[in-house]
Amino acid sequence: MKKYLLAAALLVNATMSYAQNADSIMMRRISDEVLLHSTSYSNLKVLCKEIGHRLSGTPAAAKAVAWGKEAMQVAGADTVWLQPVKVPHWVRGKESLKIKTAHNNTYHLQLLSIGNTVGTDGKVLSAQVVMVNDIEAFKKLPKKQVRGKIIFFNYRFKQDLVNPFEGYGDAGFYRWTAPNWASAKGAAGVIIRSVSTGIDDFPHTGSMRYADTVQPIPAVAIGNMGADKLEADCKKGIVTAMLSSECKMLADEQSYNVIGEIKGTEQPEKIVLVGGHLDSWDIGEGAHDDGAGCVQSIEVIRAMKALGIKPRYTVRAVLFMNEENGLKGGLAYGDSAKARKETHLFAIETDAGGFSPRGIGLAMSNDKRKQVQQYRNLFLPYGVYDFDGEEGGADISPLRRQGVPVAGLLPDPQRYFDLHHTANDVFEQISHRELKMGAATLTQIVYLISKHGL
Amino acid sequence: MKKYLLAAALLVNATMSYAQNADSIMMRRISDEVLLHSTSYSNLKVLCKEIGHRLSGTPAAAKAVAWGKEAMQVAGADTVWLQPVKVPHWVRGKESLKIKTAHNNTYHLQLLSIGNTVGTDGKVLSAQVVMVNDIEAFKKLPKKQVRGKIIFFNYRFKQDLVNPFEGYGDAGFYRWTAPNWASAKGAAGVIIRSVSTGIDDFPHTGSMRYADTVQPIPAVAIGNMGADKLEADCKKGIVTAMLSSECKMLADEQSYNVIGEIKGTEQPEKIVLVGGHLDSWDIGEGAHDDGAGCVQSIEVIRAMKALGIKPRYTVRAVLFMNEENGLKGGLAYGDSAKARKETHLFAIETDAGGFSPRGIGLAMSNDKRKQVQQYRNLFLPYGVYDFDGEEGGADISPLRRQGVPVAGLLPDPQRYFDLHHTANDVFEQISHRELKMGAATLTQIVYLISKHGL
Repeated sequence: MKKYLLAAALLVNATMSYAQNADSIMMRRISDEVLLHSTSYSNLKVLCKEIGHRLSGTPAAAKAVAWGKEAMQVAGADTVWLQPVKVPHWVRGKESLKIKTAHNNTYHLQLLSIGNTVGTDGKVLSAQVVMVNDIEAFKKLPKKQVRGKIIFFNYRFKQDLVNPFEGYGDAGFYRWTAPNWASAKGAAGVIIRSVSTGIDDFPHTGSMRYADTVQPIPAVAIGNMGADKLEADCKKGIVTAMLSSECKMLADEQSYNVIGEIKGTEQPEKIVLVGGHLDSWDIGEGAHDDGAGCVQSIEVIRAMKALGIKPRYTVRAVLFMNEENGLKGGLAYGDSAKARKETHLFAIETDAGGFSPRGIGLAMSNDKRKQVQQYRNLFLPYGVYDFDGEEGGADISPLRRQGVPVAGLLPDPQRYFDLHHTANDVFEQISHRELKMGAATLTQIVYLISKHGL
Repeated sequence: MKKYLLAAALLVNATMSYAQNADSIMMRRISDEVLLHSTSYSNLKVLCKEIGHRLSGTPAAAKAVAWGKEAMQVAGADTVWLQPVKVPHWVRGKESLKIKTAHNNTYHLQLLSIGNTVGTDGKVLSAQVVMVNDIEAFKKLPKKQVRGKIIFFNYRFKQDLVNPFEGYGDAGFYRWTAPNWASAKGAAGVIIRSVSTGIDDFPHTGSMRYADTVQPIPAVAIGNMGADKLEADCKKGIVTAMLSSECKMLADEQSYNVIGEIKGTEQPEKIVLVGGHLDSWDIGEGAHDDGAGCVQSIEVIRAMKALGIKPRYTVRAVLFMNEENGLKGGLAYGDSAKARKETHLFAIETDAGGFSPRGIGLAMSNDKRKQVQQYRNLFLPYGVYDFDGEEGGADISPLRRQGVPVAGLLPDPQRYFDLHHTANDVFEQISHRELKMGAATLTQIVYLISKHGL
């Protein structure tokens, strides 16, 4: 009996290593194909330089949709279609922040209104600045020290964290939520030190959401150097800020997710999804956030087609609309998947920048997690070693809530929060080889799961 | 007996995990200290922007030596000294490359003479261009097709290799050696497609060495875009190149390695070395190559001092002179170590760019290799996972030949050969967080080995 078991075990082993060997060979072919012939870098150049930034609801976002549709077709997708999404349309307009110090010196600070906030209708909001270093200090302030003031949340990004994404989760509170705390206590406006690892003066915008219970007040971000200057002046005496801004929310606009797919040969009703988001903030070029993810997702289609890979399950690349200030694309996709009773075997998002890949975060049941982790050795030759994280992505979070196993590409995280949501997130910040390495990793994992299932 | 063995095993395990835990805590403190307080980025700014490029033998190299000495002192080294090194002094002068096509169109190509080569004494060397795609094709050329011609080695960097350092080893032959092959067959000059992963027109210089048996001939590098253009024209008909250059080798100059150390508390005669090279090519700012390695090595001293770490063995940081075009600093250091009968327990070089660290290459006996590899788990929280490579570094290769266990920091390799030896290797290409992550890794490995030995 033992002998038979042994023989059976050897057979299983031999079969497994044959399968792994075939996979290993195809993964090398994918890597070669992407590194030598990828169109991701040239595609990204067009998206960044010919269209540029593309906030939801803008004409540029509409152009990006048309671009994405064509790029999917050129990549060789069997089917390409647009999925309707109603998106918010926030506009920035002019904005200015002038500071008057206790010694009556005045200067302007670089600023960006935080996305989705109200402005001052172009009028000057003049008020005393009250600086606090964190929310605990703010909570201790008596109401009368807040009422009518402009609160300066001078919270620093934790540079000692090895992974800046943890620092983003931490400091992001001051952009996303803290303005609500200020408003609830009667503040007239908010200035935040940008959620930024940069040693520079780029302000970082990003999204915020007013709580239903508070009066919307203007909220703006200033760069780290500007914040240092303002901090120094606040320590010296009473500082006044004169803020004017024109930002406001317009009526919703019609927009689209762009979807391209390769039909599965055996069970086409089961879907393996790879995606990024097509919208960006209204500054810079959205190169890393998330032009990179879009062109990488398109590259998955192109590379699989170029190599003649015929996936067992359907491979779908999705360019989501409105990740930045509403997530309407991700929500619409999730609703549609539910309504159409689509089965998603796996969904992976790439929205952490076009940097060298280091791993794949896995947010799924332990069983499926282990199944994916078995591929780790296949990825090691490509420098992709970390399968221990639990990251997914915002656009696929509605799928995750429906029980779909989701994942996120984990590129090297060190540079992202220098650039994220700034005027400096431009094509020149992209390394063609890093971008392609990420595209190869995505193609490899999509290949594996569209062949073996999950 | 078995019981005692078990007890002993448990004791060893407990002791080991206690030691690993203490090490793990100190490694976190090192990481925090470097990420929050490192002076590596500000030091590098001074080196790049106030001194700039610093080829051996130049006044800028002398300034860099003075800078390095002071920076070591400011970092808190117990002792700082200069180790004399005689270095070559190669100068570039003016250079120009004009192309005339078969259709009598003319244009200039961006070029850089290859380091250490002869020039044309400022005269115009005009000759027909003979293009070959690789050395095999060149070998097949009859002598009469080479004699008096300018050979264009149109060899492409292998972009499909996941690690571009392998591609550098491969394509580097055409810069380092191929001009000798051309000269041996009577060529008048050589043009090479740069050893470059860049999708741009930056020429990459670098070193070459004439064989004793051949007549030195001028050899220049052109950028990838220029090479594409020249390739296209060579395919269309007879192309003439008009090359003029003034580069030449002057008399040797006196220079120095800069050395700083923290004296070991128990066995100060045993040395743990960390180093990079202070010289750079005569273009750009030598930011990644190897200003980064210099400021990281200085940071090891600063961080250990700031944390009050008292190493059992002596920790020595060395800024080597003349890595680029002679290795005289590394050779002088090796000779001195031998003459003074110094014992080096371990030497690590950082000369692969200031990018996010991924691993440490180990060139040493299997026993010692395994000993270092036991630290792998301690490094994983910092994204440093790869201890399987066998890289050391050029400057410490003389020590390696004396039997010293050597190692090399392995940063992410994807961007290096876009920038390496170009005018684009400037401070702006450095990410402060990536630079510091590398400095932390170096401090951590030096801490471990200067405590536990090897």
